[in-house]
Amino acid sequence: MRHFAFFASAAVLAFAASVTPAAAEEGMWTYDNFPIARANESLGTHIDQGFLDRLRLSSVKFGGCSAGLISGEGLIMTNNHCVATCVANLSTPQLQYAETGFLPKSREEELKCQGATAEILTDISDVTERINKAAHGLEGQAFTRARESEAGRIELEACGTDKTIRCQVVSLYRGGQFKLYKFRKYDDVRLAWAPEDRAATFGGDLDNFSFPRFAIDAAFIRVYEDGKPAQTPTHFTWNADKPTEGEPVFLSGNPGSTQRLLTQAQLMTIRDVVLPMDQLIASELRGRLIRYSEEGDEQAFIAMDPIVGVENTYKRGVGRMRALTDADFMDRLAGQETVFRRSVAESEVLSAQVGDPWANLAAVQSDARELYAPMALLEGGTGMGTTSVAGGSNLFGYAKTLVRGAQERAKPSAERLAEYSDSRLSGVEARLFAERPTYPELEQIRLEWWLSKTREWLTVDSPYMAALLGKESPEGLSARLVAGSKLADPAVRRALWEGGLAAIQASDDPMIQYALRIDADSRAVRTDWENKVDGPTSKASEQLSAARFAVYGDTVYPDATGTLRLTYGKVEGSDVPGQRFGAFTTFAGLWDRATGAEPFVLTPGLQAARDRIDPNTVMNMAVSTDTIGGSSGSPVLNAKGEIIGANFDSTVLSQRNAYGYDIRTNRSVIVTTQAVTTALRDVYGLDHLLVELGVK
Amino acid sequence: MRHFAFFASAAVLAFAASVTPAAAEEGMWTYDNFPIARANESLGTHIDQGFLDRLRLSSVKFGGCSAGLISGEGLIMTNNHCVATCVANLSTPQLQYAETGFLPKSREEELKCQGATAEILTDISDVTERINKAAHGLEGQAFTRARESEAGRIELEACGTDKTIRCQVVSLYRGGQFKLYKFRKYDDVRLAWAPEDRAATFGGDLDNFSFPRFAIDAAFIRVYEDGKPAQTPTHFTWNADKPTEGEPVFLSGNPGSTQRLLTQAQLMTIRDVVLPMDQLIASELRGRLIRYSEEGDEQAFIAMDPIVGVENTYKRGVGRMRALTDADFMDRLAGQETVFRRSVAESEVLSAQVGDPWANLAAVQSDARELYAPMALLEGGTGMGTTSVAGGSNLFGYAKTLVRGAQERAKPSAERLAEYSDSRLSGVEARLFAERPTYPELEQIRLEWWLSKTREWLTVDSPYMAALLGKESPEGLSARLVAGSKLADPAVRRALWEGGLAAIQASDDPMIQYALRIDADSRAVRTDWENKVDGPTSKASEQLSAARFAVYGDTVYPDATGTLRLTYGKVEGSDVPGQRFGAFTTFAGLWDRATGAEPFVLTPGLQAARDRIDPNTVMNMAVSTDTIGGSSGSPVLNAKGEIIGANFDSTVLSQRNAYGYDIRTNRSVIVTTQAVTTALRDVYGLDHLLVELGVK
Repeated sequence: MRHFAFFASAAVLAFAASVTPAAAEEGMWTYDNFPIARANESLGTHIDQGFLDRLRLSSVKFGGCSAGLISGEGLIMTNNHCVATCVANLSTPQLQYAETGFLPKSREEELKCQGATAEILTDISDVTERINKAAHGLEGQAFTRARESEAGRIELEACGTDKTIRCQVVSLYRGGQFKLYKFRKYDDVRLAWAPEDRAATFGGDLDNFSFPRFAIDAAFIRVYEDGKPAQTPTHFTWNADKPTEGEPVFLSGNPGSTQRLLTQAQLMTIRDVVLPMDQLIASELRGRLIRYSEEGDEQAFIAMDPIVGVENTYKRGVGRMRALTDADFMDRLAGQETVFRRSVAESEVLSAQVGDPWANLAAVQSDARELYAPMALLEGGTGMGTTSVAGGSNLFGYAKTLVRGAQERAKPSAERLAEYSDSRLSGVEARLFAERPTYPELEQIRLEWWLSKTREWLTVDSPYMAALLGKESPEGLSARLVAGSKLADPAVRRALWEGGLAAIQASDDPMIQYALRIDADSRAVRTDWENKVDGPTSKASEQLSAARFAVYGDTVYPDATGTLRLTYGKVEGSDVPGQRFGAFTTFAGLWDRATGAEPFVLTPGLQAARDRIDPNTVMNMAVSTDTIGGSSGSPVLNAKGEIIGANFDSTVLSQRNAYGYDIRTNRSVIVTTQAVTTALRDVYGLDHLLVELGVK
Repeated sequence: MRHFAFFASAAVLAFAASVTPAAAEEGMWTYDNFPIARANESLGTHIDQGFLDRLRLSSVKFGGCSAGLISGEGLIMTNNHCVATCVANLSTPQLQYAETGFLPKSREEELKCQGATAEILTDISDVTERINKAAHGLEGQAFTRARESEAGRIELEACGTDKTIRCQVVSLYRGGQFKLYKFRKYDDVRLAWAPEDRAATFGGDLDNFSFPRFAIDAAFIRVYEDGKPAQTPTHFTWNADKPTEGEPVFLSGNPGSTQRLLTQAQLMTIRDVVLPMDQLIASELRGRLIRYSEEGDEQAFIAMDPIVGVENTYKRGVGRMRALTDADFMDRLAGQETVFRRSVAESEVLSAQVGDPWANLAAVQSDARELYAPMALLEGGTGMGTTSVAGGSNLFGYAKTLVRGAQERAKPSAERLAEYSDSRLSGVEARLFAERPTYPELEQIRLEWWLSKTREWLTVDSPYMAALLGKESPEGLSARLVAGSKLADPAVRRALWEGGLAAIQASDDPMIQYALRIDADSRAVRTDWENKVDGPTSKASEQLSAARFAVYGDTVYPDATGTLRLTYGKVEGSDVPGQRFGAFTTFAGLWDRATGAEPFVLTPGLQAARDRIDPNTVMNMAVSTDTIGGSSGSPVLNAKGEIIGANFDSTVLSQRNAYGYDIRTNRSVIVTTQAVTTALRDVYGLDHLLVELGVK
């Protein structure tokens, strides 16, 4: 895109001018394009390329989380909530590690996390030219397939079939750049320490997405090679000291997804239509689940995870809503859009190439507004909101997968719905055949809620109601489906999957029959959505990305896409309305906050260690680095590259990060190495780990 | 205000130009300022002052509802939901009229509605000059008191102590005009017919605030004088014919409250802060109540009314949110504000007199946004939202009234909180001593929900949490309070009330102790709110009203305030996104909609009458008249002044009526006289009423 460089500089100046000076700390930078000079200037540090290389080679991708190597023998710190599945899998009804903590006294007691992998990014190379060349002159599906094929070839050439390496061609700047990322991959990952769930989630939903915070949301894993701890000479040095307010920090992790190129018109649709529906109906589900959880101990157990899930999503939505109704924040985004749009308009070449994506996206919004509810409620996959079909009912999910899977597999792969193409089928099967508990009462709550909310939002007079409810009530229909379905049994699901369309059509399982009954309507809704909303949006978004890359090149950072990024900032509190706090919390604060009533109950271990712990020890801290979901577990480094904490959360007001960075509100919430050191020593007595970390 | 007339005409033209031509139907007009010519021109009718007088003298105020005289012997039609309290009071556990309908076969069987009154507006006279003179030169409280005293004198002079007359000085244009309204008052009101609740609310919450609709939400009452039916020679003529699409209609009733002078800044606060909190937490309460109602028959009975209440308020909020996020609607309001503001700015005299109320109101909003949640949750009475303290717990309400009542009555009346001034005490006592059932489980749900939402919205770190929760959990605290309180017993409440402050302070009732414990905090919140939000808002709103009256005089209508108004429009369907329907529904539609599953279950009476009823009979219709809550039961008249229906609802999208009239969406929902005639004849067999109505 060098041919647009002639006006990039002026535009960049204009862009920079529209950003507040403090927003120098903005940016989820790729490691091969990190603004070293700008960071040093902003922070007063002296980092160099060697610093970046060490950080990158010590940073770990662990599933959807981030992590950091902390010893030469494969020891890694991440968040406790990142090892929750491993902890659950290792537990038995008699030995619930979430209750007790997982506390191996030696390496020999470390236990394998089934299915877990840990990856370190070892090489980055540019393959943009090769990808672009492969798709040159092609359009539509042929264009996409040519790119995908070329990416596959590049990956195979670079990595072969070596199981210890993974290659991935990543698209940055939404197709403006393609890079080959090469990872050292470990598939023997063992759990080395996990605290009690209650210590890691102290404060529960009330403290979630907030600060002050008092949570030991940390855990250790270890990578093994040939049955022995892997040798990892490059790793972060453990710094157990008290952190300093105002000190520079770097945060290295894999932020999941940002949408910082959404136009004002798109943001208004999210503000006015998507979030209100999602949040209002989620709030009602939350109420139903809370009341259900109070009906007995078993109900409380069944409802616990669903409530945590709903509350987490809901609270994120609250933060996003606050962003979209914050006039200052929105004015700043609008100002950036105006500057960018003007830059494009002023270039005839660029305008001719990309058209007016803003106008195109604005034109889509009336359909998006009208079709969001039916799409979200009947088919899902809007890419815009959080409402899930059938309220996340397992049984309905199985039935839909079985019905669609049977219908789609009867076609050639290229003609199928994308999620049933040959390359995705093994994933579909893995999910479909997985052993998961199904609780009929929970299924009833989810389905009944979904049916009643769908009827409410689409109205009784919607043409979809005939198939969706017929003459039944949400209560009666869901009861009938849940009581009659056998899909909770994996063997039943497997038989139906293997039996194909004939087995599906012959099935008398009421959930299968129901999924069949509403299938035509939900497919029709999806087609409508794809034609009127998703298709035009994708096309205009690509135009927008092309324009952005043309104007700004890589002087700006790409949207987060789950790839490794480095961000920087300072240890810093906050002082804006609705978010006023200092930079640190201490164990003294934890003792104060512990009321003895859930969710503010101390673990017995913390209770017992209370007198041994220096009350001024810093537990958690706030830093101003630019993060988003997926950054969980990200190592936080000081200017010397020493690890001083792990990111485990942000704040409600930081949820605007999805749409744009706001230095006033953006705060990552960090569990400090000082707190972890104290916990390992005074609470858990895991001296072998302290020795390994070099703690005296 | 005649001295500003010189620029009123230009401003009015500008104002009119900013309004769509169709909005000619806008306006809740007072009877003494109805735009006869404009209505005739818009509708093609030929109404005159005599027409208006007959309508006024046939219109009835019935509690918070509206109604219309339909015979010379005191028979009145209103909505069934307006007689719900009367029906409940007349019922016994063995004879539930809401289930069976109330179907007296003759006048002798009509039963008195305790405490009900019916009033007819007989005279209107202007007392503006007298009121203004009384308060001339005064400021602040003295100003308000002088006006109130003068109004009291005027009322006494005009009505004396005659129990059959009521006089009321009403403030219109928010103090721009004062009128003396004189009513003929009837306090012997008897129930003459009420259908089954299920026939009147067919479709339940799903059909509430919507159209098409299939509800017989009508009821008859009769006013008595000296134990005999009152003679009411002026009344509406009953027209049992099928209504005609497009025909002109007039709607005469008592709309409760509109806020059409809210500025853009105020509306944004409602959109961004007030409605989101109110709606989200109401939705959770709804979920808790719905799940509770499913736990058993008794729970279903207990939860029924609370659910109806929450759902009604919630749905109104949905409509208001849609208004505030409708760009076209909001642009229109903003345009009107701009024109109005410019008119004021262009007059030096007026500007000097009223200042810049828009800027003053804008300046209040940051405090309003920050203080809304604590005020709504701790003290209530924000005048902005619908969240009520303690979730509407009876027991807490009693305790707060007892605590505040004792504290306030220890002071001279003039120094008390307004709601405990001497003139209000009898009302406070009536509510406090009333026999009402208290359901401990419902109390628990309300209190627990309120405590947990208050903690969530104010955050755990709010200074209010110490008194509000201390070290207890919402679940534990509410359980302790509900289990220990004796306030469900009216005798206990009476003893505490009569015992005054000493009794309150000595009480060991945990709810009393709790109300005392949080009293200082909630009073502090209220003081803060009054100083920073309510006071400045009232002052600026008065400036705004003065400016509006100066610019437009009475060429515009005043905001609704519960006084009698006449509106006009047409029988008309709707065709905008989210609201597409024809003008009529028929019994044939009812048969189709009746699925047999709640809330779409036919009454046995309707079932049995099905073959007798002409399926083309119009049940309900939509009309474009300008209405708001309080218009329930309003008689709908044709151009001849014959009654053709009663207003019983509007639509979700019509909720924007609070902020401004929108011809595109505004629709009132009417039960037709044709449907009522058919029901009386074919379902209920009440021939004596048909004879009285003159139906052949």
